[in-house]
Amino acid sequence: MEAGLMQVGRRGFLGLAGAGAAGAAVALGAQAGLGQRRTGAPAAGMYAFEGPHQAGIVTPAQDRMYFASFDVTTRSRERLVALLQDWTRAARELTAGREVGGGTLPYADPPADTGEAIGLPASGLTLTFGVGPSLFTGADGTDRFGLGGRRPAALETLPHFPKDHLDPSRSDGDLCVQACADDPQVAFHAIRNLTRLAFGTAALRWSQLGFGRTSSTSSSQETPRNLFGFKDGTANLKAEESGELDRHLWVAAGDDPRADWLAGGTYLVARRISMRIETWDRTSLREQEGIFGRDRAQGAPLSGGREFDRPDFTATSRDGAPLIATGSHVRLAHPSQNDGHRMLRRGYNYTDGDTSLGRMDAGLFFVAFVRDPARQYIPLQNTLARQDALTEYLQHTGSGLFACPPGVGPDGWIGEGLFA
Amino acid sequence: MEAGLMQVGRRGFLGLAGAGAAGAAVALGAQAGLGQRRTGAPAAGMYAFEGPHQAGIVTPAQDRMYFASFDVTTRSRERLVALLQDWTRAARELTAGREVGGGTLPYADPPADTGEAIGLPASGLTLTFGVGPSLFTGADGTDRFGLGGRRPAALETLPHFPKDHLDPSRSDGDLCVQACADDPQVAFHAIRNLTRLAFGTAALRWSQLGFGRTSSTSSSQETPRNLFGFKDGTANLKAEESGELDRHLWVAAGDDPRADWLAGGTYLVARRISMRIETWDRTSLREQEGIFGRDRAQGAPLSGGREFDRPDFTATSRDGAPLIATGSHVRLAHPSQNDGHRMLRRGYNYTDGDTSLGRMDAGLFFVAFVRDPARQYIPLQNTLARQDALTEYLQHTGSGLFACPPGVGPDGWIGEGLFA
Ligand code: HEM
Ligand code: HEM
Repeated sequence: MEAGLMQVGRRGFLGLAGAGAAGAAVALGAQAGLGQRRTGAPAAGMYAFEGPHQAGIVTPAQDRMYFASFDVTTRSRERLVALLQDWTRAARELTAGREVGGGTLPYADPPADTGEAIGLPASGLTLTFGVGPSLFTGADGTDRFGLGGRRPAALETLPHFPKDHLDPSRSDGDLCVQACADDPQVAFHAIRNLTRLAFGTAALRWSQLGFGRTSSTSSSQETPRNLFGFKDGTANLKAEESGELDRHLWVAAGDDPRADWLAGGTYLVARRISMRIETWDRTSLREQEGIFGRDRAQGAPLSGGREFDRPDFTATSRDGAPLIATGSHVRLAHPSQNDGHRMLRRGYNYTDGDTSLGRMDAGLFFVAFVRDPARQYIPLQNTLARQDALTEYLQHTGSGLFACPPGVGPDGWIGEGLFA
Repeated sequence: MEAGLMQVGRRGFLGLAGAGAAGAAVALGAQAGLGQRRTGAPAAGMYAFEGPHQAGIVTPAQDRMYFASFDVTTRSRERLVALLQDWTRAARELTAGREVGGGTLPYADPPADTGEAIGLPASGLTLTFGVGPSLFTGADGTDRFGLGGRRPAALETLPHFPKDHLDPSRSDGDLCVQACADDPQVAFHAIRNLTRLAFGTAALRWSQLGFGRTSSTSSSQETPRNLFGFKDGTANLKAEESGELDRHLWVAAGDDPRADWLAGGTYLVARRISMRIETWDRTSLREQEGIFGRDRAQGAPLSGGREFDRPDFTATSRDGAPLIATGSHVRLAHPSQNDGHRMLRRGYNYTDGDTSLGRMDAGLFFVAFVRDPARQYIPLQNTLARQDALTEYLQHTGSGLFACPPGVGPDGWIGEGLFA
């Protein structure tokens, strides 16, 4: 109990739940629900499901993630709507640490909840939903659900980038759900139960477990490290930068006249980036730091100072070479090189059992949220693929772009505006 | 700091570190090492590496696991010995939360430690090493390292069991390392650095991430749940049952005259068991409980009582049918049906990204430690594969048997006795 309360303080739960008036909703959520709470524990480690924006975006990045992409298998608009309503109902329960579908069922039926999270607290679970381009125009070019006219202009399958090596079975999808939690069993349980609810309407296309966060999305968080051993998330867009969030993250009314339903939402870019860690591990520290443009120990820019100091791209060494090299990742990705654009990165380290030739199958499941992928992601990815010194150590193996609708109120359901 | 200390109490760290006089070694370990401690935090969440037995066996099961199997790629006995010595040195550092290889290196070299765990505490990391049958007789039948005469009789590749569907690339191996920790990034980091140290001597053969423990190995732990939603680990062999550990877990001097080096050690059985969770989820609660012989909510035997009460296999319902069905998992696996044999189970739930036909690739990475696999594992697995009602929902896709040498003292190295 005391440990639970301490955790609230340590991780900054509640205080940062959603931007705005979401704090109150946290306490409400704990009482309002129908299902059984899985433990007697208080509402510690719980984020409000409701709010102007979906949770799981500016929410302080949880430690673990399970991401899933789905193909819709029905052609019925009604069934698709019913699925989104069912998912919303289940998401309210899951994020509150309750069992899906309420209490126990008669013995003659399968249990409504699959059970592996019984006894576990909410664990900071957030569920973030998105819709992919193929929901609007299916593989056969047809508009299955009569949504074609409402498709946001920016919601196009990402283009082929230089050196992409994409596996179609790890890419794209009609719908996506990002489950983040501090306990991976809780995130897994959520996706599994949503998958189960979708039976007959949508089928799992691919999924990805992320074992360690590689970003901070709040200045209250310590910067974690990626599998190249460097701090990752330092210069990220953070929950506290409210003006910047409106500028770079949230779609505004009027951004896209065809897609007013997306106002208050955002775009999710997912890239499964395999990292050649064995090659990296044979590279000198000097070269590694040069590639990123930051030092490994502290994450400080190579132009000097400390982690959160501004990189000085004009600084040179005595021989005139820039201290932050021209082809370095941080220089190429910096807003000053990208018309001032920023993004909110929210990626996770992953490893999959499969190894070939003694290589570990491991890397970064890159997730970023942007107001406009056409300006904030695509140009930068093109630049990085061509010029970034880091690219030599990477291979992009999966890809997806999804539009994440705004958050919901007490009676709303995810995606409601799209079908209105 | 306070949270750290609370954790010591909550998880029972230190108190259970190794059976016997290992408590003192914890405090020692924190000072004796060479490398840099990764954080300023105290030795909370740290298990002694040294002791009469290897850690990671009776250690209270940590929340997460990363398991790796290796092929030895050299034919040089000296290099194999050097690897085991290097691994032991690194394991002392890693389990103490220190960087591998001590402090920072000159810029012109690759860093000695890959860095992704910098800033993370030891997180209860244990590293448990084992040797497979193929170390004694290679694929080509040769005794590469002159160890043939010391091969324990029970260290044979596990036989083919009914319904096995094994993937050779997820099975067997010359060496194994089980890394368990409460933070998966710490477990991953450990395996990655050991893999790196092995470069040129041994290569990763397969690896498996486990995201949630499915057993308790101490009566101080709550019983967790497997992906079928049931409590798993209730009737497990526990650290506190010291007499039982000697009887069922630790190899004794004289057990095998050829393999005295294994006294104080044990055998590790690994089985990657894929679970048909979609089919399970369509099964009624009644049937699910009948299959296990326990109820889902509490884990109590169907003969009545509470979780830790003894199952009564003679109890029948009014119509004379046994309350714990003849083909139920718990009945078939119970010591009373197995000449009194028990095992220490230490498995983990897993999921791998790969999905086919909309099915989740998920299941149980079953790990068990036994004094004699020929008596304690093989007969039971044969029985379960033939008669267990659970088998219909399972598919064994990976397999391995390894002998885990005893623990080491301050100057020892893992496997030393085997080469003496
Ligand atoms: C495995 C691949 C990648 C790794 C290991 C990586 C790592 C890093 C690191 C260590 C930093 C510096 C610390 C920080 O500010 O977070 C950074 C910054 C950044 N990265 Fe990446 N990154 C990867 C891929 C990408 C991709 C694909 C993009 C977008 C197309 C991207 C965009 C950015 C941006 C925008 C910054 C902040 C630049 C600034 O404002 O200073 N990164 N990345
Ligand atoms: C996915 C596969 C499996 C699942 C889901 C599973 C699940 C369970 C559950 C729920 C229990 C009851 C609670 C407990 O005492 O832990 C149990 C008990 C047990 N299982 Fe399994 N098990 C699996 C595979 C195996 C295998 C392969 C073996 C060994 C060959 C095994 C050996 C045992 C033993 C020895 C017990 C304790 C029986 C007793 O003393 O009451 N299990 N298992």
